[in-house]
Amino acid sequence: MLDIASHRGVASDVAGLIARRRPSFSLEAALYTSQDVFDLDVELIFGRQWIFAGPEAALPEPGDYAKLDFGRYSIITLRDDDGGVRAFHNVCRHRGARLLNECNGTVGNIVCPYHQWTYDTGGKLLHAEGDHAFDRAQYGLKPVHIHNVAGLLFVCLAKEAPTDFDKFAAEFEPYLLPHGIGDSKVAYQMDIVEKGNWKLTMENNRECYHCGGHPELSVTAFGMFGYNEDNITPEKEAVLRQYKSVQSDFIRLWEGENLPWHAVEHLDDRQAGFRAERHPLDGPGEAMTMDGKAACKRTMGRLKNFRLGRLHLHTQPNSWHHFQADHAVTFCVLPISPGETLLRTTWLVHKDAVEGVDYELDNLIHVWRETNRQDQHFVELAHLGALSPAYEPGPYAPSEGQVDKFCSWYVTQLGSNLARR
Amino acid sequence: MLDIASHRGVASDVAGLIARRRPSFSLEAALYTSQDVFDLDVELIFGRQWIFAGPEAALPEPGDYAKLDFGRYSIITLRDDDGGVRAFHNVCRHRGARLLNECNGTVGNIVCPYHQWTYDTGGKLLHAEGDHAFDRAQYGLKPVHIHNVAGLLFVCLAKEAPTDFDKFAAEFEPYLLPHGIGDSKVAYQMDIVEKGNWKLTMENNRECYHCGGHPELSVTAFGMFGYNEDNITPEKEAVLRQYKSVQSDFIRLWEGENLPWHAVEHLDDRQAGFRAERHPLDGPGEAMTMDGKAACKRTMGRLKNFRLGRLHLHTQPNSWHHFQADHAVTFCVLPISPGETLLRTTWLVHKDAVEGVDYELDNLIHVWRETNRQDQHFVELAHLGALSPAYEPGPYAPSEGQVDKFCSWYVTQLGSNLARR
Amino acid sequence: MLDIASHRGVASDVAGLIARRRPSFSLEAALYTSQDVFDLDVELIFGRQWIFAGPEAALPEPGDYAKLDFGRYSIITLRDDDGGVRAFHNVCRHRGARLLNECNGTVGNIVCPYHQWTYDTGGKLLHAEGDHAFDRAQYGLKPVHIHNVAGLLFVCLAKEAPTDFDKFAAEFEPYLLPHGIGDSKVAYQMDIVEKGNWKLTMENNRECYHCGGHPELSVTAFGMFGYNEDNITPEKEAVLRQYKSVQSDFIRLWEGENLPWHAVEHLDDRQAGFRAERHPLDGPGEAMTMDGKAACKRTMGRLKNFRLGRLHLHTQPNSWHHFQADHAVTFCVLPISPGETLLRTTWLVHKDAVEGVDYELDNLIHVWRETNRQDQHFVELAHLGALSPAYEPGPYAPSEGQVDKFCSWYVTQLGSNLARR
Repeated sequence: MLDIASHRGVASDVAGLIARRRPSFSLEAALYTSQDVFDLDVELIFGRQWIFAGPEAALPEPGDYAKLDFGRYSIITLRDDDGGVRAFHNVCRHRGARLLNECNGTVGNIVCPYHQWTYDTGGKLLHAEGDHAFDRAQYGLKPVHIHNVAGLLFVCLAKEAPTDFDKFAAEFEPYLLPHGIGDSKVAYQMDIVEKGNWKLTMENNRECYHCGGHPELSVTAFGMFGYNEDNITPEKEAVLRQYKSVQSDFIRLWEGENLPWHAVEHLDDRQAGFRAERHPLDGPGEAMTMDGKAACKRTMGRLKNFRLGRLHLHTQPNSWHHFQADHAVTFCVLPISPGETLLRTTWLVHKDAVEGVDYELDNLIHVWRETNRQDQHFVELAHLGALSPAYEPGPYAPSEGQVDKFCSWYVTQLGSNLARR
Repeated sequence: MLDIASHRGVASDVAGLIARRRPSFSLEAALYTSQDVFDLDVELIFGRQWIFAGPEAALPEPGDYAKLDFGRYSIITLRDDDGGVRAFHNVCRHRGARLLNECNGTVGNIVCPYHQWTYDTGGKLLHAEGDHAFDRAQYGLKPVHIHNVAGLLFVCLAKEAPTDFDKFAAEFEPYLLPHGIGDSKVAYQMDIVEKGNWKLTMENNRECYHCGGHPELSVTAFGMFGYNEDNITPEKEAVLRQYKSVQSDFIRLWEGENLPWHAVEHLDDRQAGFRAERHPLDGPGEAMTMDGKAACKRTMGRLKNFRLGRLHLHTQPNSWHHFQADHAVTFCVLPISPGETLLRTTWLVHKDAVEGVDYELDNLIHVWRETNRQDQHFVELAHLGALSPAYEPGPYAPSEGQVDKFCSWYVTQLGSNLARR
Repeated sequence: MLDIASHRGVASDVAGLIARRRPSFSLEAALYTSQDVFDLDVELIFGRQWIFAGPEAALPEPGDYAKLDFGRYSIITLRDDDGGVRAFHNVCRHRGARLLNECNGTVGNIVCPYHQWTYDTGGKLLHAEGDHAFDRAQYGLKPVHIHNVAGLLFVCLAKEAPTDFDKFAAEFEPYLLPHGIGDSKVAYQMDIVEKGNWKLTMENNRECYHCGGHPELSVTAFGMFGYNEDNITPEKEAVLRQYKSVQSDFIRLWEGENLPWHAVEHLDDRQAGFRAERHPLDGPGEAMTMDGKAACKRTMGRLKNFRLGRLHLHTQPNSWHHFQADHAVTFCVLPISPGETLLRTTWLVHKDAVEGVDYELDNLIHVWRETNRQDQHFVELAHLGALSPAYEPGPYAPSEGQVDKFCSWYVTQLGSNLARR
């Protein structure tokens, strides 16, 4: 509850927006721009779903933590003294002071900077002045569900977390485990704030109709995402044929390393929606770099060859990922306000890879740093447009089918959580 | 609709504010400071009335456009391929991206930067991926009414535009046509953001009681605006006599060039309210400059003499203008938020005048650049005052009669559009 | 009333928050973060109570004024031509322009910068254009209650000011009069904006549980505020014994100068709540400086010795003070928004003391400048925490009893003024 009266009568308005949703069309403006809807998005989407929190690799040692802020929430993920990963609300149980204030860091115990209430890495309150007067066990840090999927950390703030997440984990882990993401290290992390609604950031990721605006990405990606025989445009037909031809080569390579590659897609038919598929890359086919070659000299995990294209993963509501033989890139979307969204991008390499020896940072991050900036511009134009009272939902192109599925998932989840509220 | 619940019950509150309005007194604070009232101002005043959008001279060639933002609206005016002027909502019909993002520019077709939906200068959708699946004719740019009054562009967002605008055009064109504004060029344009409500910007323009704060303007303007025999203060009596005496000279000059000069005023008795009158200027009487002489060596339009004083035009709700023999200055007021207003000032000269040869820019713009800054300060003081709960409406001075008429026009229009909403 | 509809239904919500208040626990989050609650705080706390406005010493001569802004209010305190102190709303009665725009200054008459409406230092309207048409006596500046307590100025915006303020004045003046605060001068004033709710700024001041975070302050202050035999922690027992021992010495010194020193406390049992007590200081015991010695060579008022520790004063809702033999420091808390608070700190010395001769400014202000910055950080952490939906009220420690009393006073006053609204 952001403001006392803010949700009065809003639920029925939002229920109306949901009911009026027209499939294959962009959402009504209020779903992108309204503060009331944003508050519900934080409460019912980010507060109830499993959300991608970052790679386990950010927490190599006990006491290592990462901070994650969205809406008015602040969450910490950390490695506890037993080597497990934990997540807590970043709020002292005394007078509420924010406990940890850096993006990443290391602690022995978690000590509040205000009055030194002291919690162990399991969240247990160890010491507080006057603690003889109350039951310390009632004042541990508030835990948050956390799930480690082959090195990717997902958290859930709900009292009862959606259970079909287990299906996602079971189905996706075979794809990712060979990449050794849990054993990787963070080579670089970049935060940018896009002046647009988080759903526009997600929608932008879910189509390649705009990929003409990504010259660096287009060096290796075929720009075929969302296109198929049924919706291909005449000018892209040749590319599709080339893609299909290269794909057969890659299938042999993947099967040679015993890597699952088929598309698996549950984007709008599950609460823990996702999509995964292995794709070829153009040119040398090793990585999304400016020359298509691997950016790091070491393969990750148990992978042997560099020429393995990329494994993509999309999760609802807030992430996408590209896993290549030599490195991986994860993208975490965190809403700040109706018109501001944090995009956190993390580049991962083999944990023993050495910068300057095994990889050059600029080469590693160039393509996605530039692509992110281009996408930021697109998202901001779309948000400005949605602000206009003259905006009305327009038709998604056939190649924007996954945008449509994202929106379908969103209105379904928002609607059912609103009904159960 | 800015926020889902924002207008709940607000209409009756605003109706109360309108009903309580005390003539000859400044407005109640909420009409200046409330977000709810601002939203209604954008919807019912700027969304329903004819508003001044800028001079035609900003669009000399086909494809030239100007962007106009107010409230959450973004509008473009442009010269189409047939040489006509058009106005559209600056919103792509696909997913709403803002189409044109510079203040001024030139396009062949209007191509959305996101997915390249392409519109001709008449707003017709020419091409979009997947457009076989829908009726392209339904997805042209949303048009906005536009009217060219002797070189001044006015737009109206309403479905049905107020019809008494034609009376204004018919009555005012004889005054302005001799000035050749349609054939002029933009010498300079300046945007400033005033931290005050747009109505305070307008009120400030509608009186000269504060003109002691304008030393540069006072060189040539008599500061008699709003004063007459009935309300003249003792210290201004001599100036009024001087004004009246000089005025007789100018009347001969105006009639010598066959220029209409009588005051015509329909400030609060029409929807398309306006006032026009030709006034003498002090000293050489040529222009509002620091020496009273023309700033440009060429007269505009069919005018022959430089000594012609100024023609003023006030329009409700958002403009004022000074037309002199050698140059003209137009002022366009655009609300941004309850406490922020854009003032766009444009200086026009003969289209063949050359900077550095026929005019020096600094001399041309000095008086109004300084006067604008002084007015900005006044508007901001007034807005700060209206924020205080201790503010209450105070009495307008007799010389503030046109401020009062602006407010009367405003509450009348707001009230009647609210009733019809 | 900030926005037309803003208080609809809010009163009952706030009444619920008040009714649910759990003694000895921090407040519910909405009381710290909600815009609606903030508006009520300004209306019912800062608009109804006596609030500390600053020292009389800021207004040495007739025409001297100080400006005080909180919420949307702007108030001026000034010395009138008869030598008295006055307070007015800083709002012109014509069209509301803010009259005085500097923090401090000197005027002959108060002349509005917009249209020169002219008021004398008693607030009487002397002149306005067109003033023959209305009753000038009805358009004087709106007065605000003001009370001078031995050199400390308090103002009250209510129609009828709380009367138990007289009790505070009568009980506290004997403590403060010997310090000659009315005859002092302002050596320095510092404004900082804390990104936190004003109540968190106050709460932070009302306990020394966090004083480990104040190394400079800890040089001379014992850090015993809030601690006593009943709640002392083992590690502080030695300090408490030392404090008690030093206190007996100081009692002799205080009684030698005939200075009242006993604690007098009415923090939550009166509308004009306060607490005063004389305390020893560690080391030389003269002042809260880095060496414990006086920062100024002159004692204030009728004081003879430098070794007199400090007299503290806390007032509800918005001030605290430290009065030492050589200088005094006053702290005035002014709410700006739910998450922004101005802390104005003023250092006072004998009126004839000369900077560079009798005192070095950096030495004088060092301890509290640093302490303020540390407190700002604490307040901001607490506010960030309260923003999280995971925040819930936590238990105050025994040494935080005065924080609890501040909260009790606050909810009592808010509740009773809400009921009478």
